[in-house]
Amino acid sequence: MKIVTKKETFTNPLYLESGRILEPYELVYETYGELNDERSNAVLITHALSGSHHAAGRYEGERKPGWWDGLIGDGKAVDTKKFFVICVNVIGSCYGSTGPMSPMYPSLEPYRFRFPVVTVKDMVKAQRILLDRLGIDRLHAIIGGSMGGMQALRFAVEYPSFARHTIAMAATYATRPWVIAFNKVVQEAIVKDPRFQNGNYDPKDFAEEGFTGLAVGRMAGHISYLSPESMDRKFGRAYVETDGLFELFGKFQVERYLEYNGYGFSKWFDPLSYLYITKAINIFDLSRGHDSLEEALKRIRTDLHLIGFQRDLLFMPEEMRHIADVMGAQGQGELVRYYEVESDYGHDAFLVELEKFSDYIADVIGK
Amino acid sequence: MKIVTKKETFTNPLYLESGRILEPYELVYETYGELNDERSNAVLITHALSGSHHAAGRYEGERKPGWWDGLIGDGKAVDTKKFFVICVNVIGSCYGSTGPMSPMYPSLEPYRFRFPVVTVKDMVKAQRILLDRLGIDRLHAIIGGSMGGMQALRFAVEYPSFARHTIAMAATYATRPWVIAFNKVVQEAIVKDPRFQNGNYDPKDFAEEGFTGLAVGRMAGHISYLSPESMDRKFGRAYVETDGLFELFGKFQVERYLEYNGYGFSKWFDPLSYLYITKAINIFDLSRGHDSLEEALKRIRTDLHLIGFQRDLLFMPEEMRHIADVMGAQGQGELVRYYEVESDYGHDAFLVELEKFSDYIADVIGK
Repeated sequence: MKIVTKKETFTNPLYLESGRILEPYELVYETYGELNDERSNAVLITHALSGSHHAAGRYEGERKPGWWDGLIGDGKAVDTKKFFVICVNVIGSCYGSTGPMSPMYPSLEPYRFRFPVVTVKDMVKAQRILLDRLGIDRLHAIIGGSMGGMQALRFAVEYPSFARHTIAMAATYATRPWVIAFNKVVQEAIVKDPRFQNGNYDPKDFAEEGFTGLAVGRMAGHISYLSPESMDRKFGRAYVETDGLFELFGKFQVERYLEYNGYGFSKWFDPLSYLYITKAINIFDLSRGHDSLEEALKRIRTDLHLIGFQRDLLFMPEEMRHIADVMGAQGQGELVRYYEVESDYGHDAFLVELEKFSDYIADVIGK
Repeated sequence: MKIVTKKETFTNPLYLESGRILEPYELVYETYGELNDERSNAVLITHALSGSHHAAGRYEGERKPGWWDGLIGDGKAVDTKKFFVICVNVIGSCYGSTGPMSPMYPSLEPYRFRFPVVTVKDMVKAQRILLDRLGIDRLHAIIGGSMGGMQALRFAVEYPSFARHTIAMAATYATRPWVIAFNKVVQEAIVKDPRFQNGNYDPKDFAEEGFTGLAVGRMAGHISYLSPESMDRKFGRAYVETDGLFELFGKFQVERYLEYNGYGFSKWFDPLSYLYITKAINIFDLSRGHDSLEEALKRIRTDLHLIGFQRDLLFMPEEMRHIADVMGAQGQGELVRYYEVESDYGHDAFLVELEKFSDYIADVIGK
C-alpha cells in the first residue's frame, strides 16, 4: 500500500460559519493507494476528536499503525488496491492543519485564543476545497465515526451528491447535553489548571511530564468511550498488585488505566486544540443553517448508511436511528439505511470492533 | 416534628476493617420523632456520599430542608408520628463526625492523610455502637440509597437480625470499575490541584471562591447522577442567553448547571473527606470478610427490599436484582424482594422521584 503524507497551503480565505475567516490555512492529509484515471475511486475518511490524518499504514520506526488500519489497506474492507483513500487532519486540530497553535499571519506568533471557533461544517468545507484542488469533484464514499460521522453527515447535507456512498457511525444529528457535560469536565480542567496560563503555555512544558488539566479531563472522556460492561471485562475489580486495598492511594486496574492514558494523551495533544474541537462537537447541530432537521435531511442525495452501536453511551444508537426515521417519514427511505451493531463495548467500538462492521462497509462501497 | 441534633463521643477504640483504629471518635446524628417506651420504633436512615445526618426538617433560617425531607416527617412515608427516625453522619465525612479534618488525638492538629482508610463496614459498625449507647438493640427498619444503600446491605450482612426491615436502593453488592472510574476523575482532580497542597490546605481558603479540583471532579460526578434523558429534559440544547454560540466560552445551560453546582459544592464539602468516602465506595464489596457473596448473603435474616431505578447509570438496577437472584437461588426467596422503579432520571432518582417509591416504603415499614 502506497502511503503519501502531504500538506497544502491555501491563501484564499476560508469563510467560517461564524462569519470570521481563516487566512491563510494549511491542511495536512494522507493518501493510500492510487487515484484512477477517471478520478472516480476516491474515498474520504473523516477523523474523530483525537484522531489525525494518519488513518492507516505504519510509519517507519512507529510501533502503532494508523487509527483505522484494520479497516483500510490492501485487501481490507476499504481496499487500497481499488480505492484512493484520503484522510485530512481537520482545521482546529494539532497534527499539522491550521489550529490554535499555528502562527497567526502575518506574525509568527500562534493564534492561541485569537483562533476563531470552527465548526464541523467549516472542517468539511476545508476538506471540500482541498479535494477540489486535488481535482476530485466526486467521491466514491465518505466514511467516519464519532466526530468523523458528524463530518460525513454534514458533507451529505451541504454537498448533497458529492459522495456516492456516505457511512456515518457512532454520531448524532445534534449533540446532546450529556455529551456537552462530558466535554465540560475536560474544558474546565484544562482552563483552570494554572499551567495552562490562560492559553499562554509553552507546549514543550507538557511534552515530558504531561499536563494535568488535559489528563484529568481526558479520564472523564475515557469513561464515555467505554461502557460498564467493557470495563468489567477489561478490568473487573482487579487491584494493582503492589497496591494495598486499605491504602488511600492504592489503585484498581481501572484507575491505573485512566492515569496511564490520561497523562500519556496530555503529553502530545494540544490543550487549546482540545478546547476548540470539543466546542465544535458541542455546537454540532445538523439543522443549523436550515429551517429544521427535516429540511436539512431533505437535501441529501447520497446513499446514506447510519451505523449505531448498542451500548454506545456517548452517541446513542437511537440518535442515528432517528435520522433514518426522519428521512423515512419524509419519503427518503430508499436513500437511507440504519444498521445497528450488537456490542456492549461502548462508543470506542467504532475504533475497536472492526470485525463487526467491516463486511458491511465492504458491501456498501464494493469490494 | 421534633428534631434533635446531637453529638456523642466514644473513647473506646473503633477497630477498623483495615486493622487500624480510630480513637477517640465522635458521631453527629439527628433524630426525628420520639422513641417509644419499648424502644421498638427506631428507623435508621443511612446517607450517601455527600449527604449528612440532616435528613429531614428545616433548621431555623435555612432555605433547604434535609435531603430526604419529602420522605420523612409527620404523616409522610417514614412517619415521624409513629417512628423514631435517626440519621448518623458517617465517619470519614465532614459534617461533624470524626473525619480527616478532625483533630488527631492527643494533638489538636487535623489527621489529614494520617486518617485511616474507612470502609462502609466501619461506618456501619460505628452506627451500631451509637445505637447501643442509645439503648436501641433492634431497629424497626434501615433505609438508605446509594452509599446509604451499601450501608443498609452491610448492616443486613453483619448484624443479620438487627433490623426487622431493610430497604436498600440505588446501590450494589460490589462497586464496579465504571463507578471507580468516575471517582478517579474527582480524586485526581483534587490531588493534582496545587491549592490542595498535598492535603495541607486551609479549608477557609475554599469557603469563598471554591476549590477547582473538587469542583471539576464533582462535575464528572453530576454526569453520573443524571442520565442523557434527564439532561435532555432539564437543559436540552438551550444556550445561556447572553452567551454567543461562536464564542469559545459561550455556554450551554448544562455547562452553567455543572459550573454552578460544581463550584458551589466545593465551597462547603471537604476535599479530604471526598477522597476518603469515595475510597470507601470504591472498595465496597459485600463479600469481603466472607467466603463469597453467596455466603455473605446467607447470613441475612432481615426482611430485605432492594429498589433499583431503570436508568440509574451509576449503580445499575441489574446489580440490585442480582442480590435478589442470588438469595432466591439459595432458598432465601422469602426474605427478599426486588422492586424496580420506572424512571429515566438517573441515579439521583432516589433523592428526587420520591413519589415513585414512598408508598412502597410506607407499605414495607407500616404506616
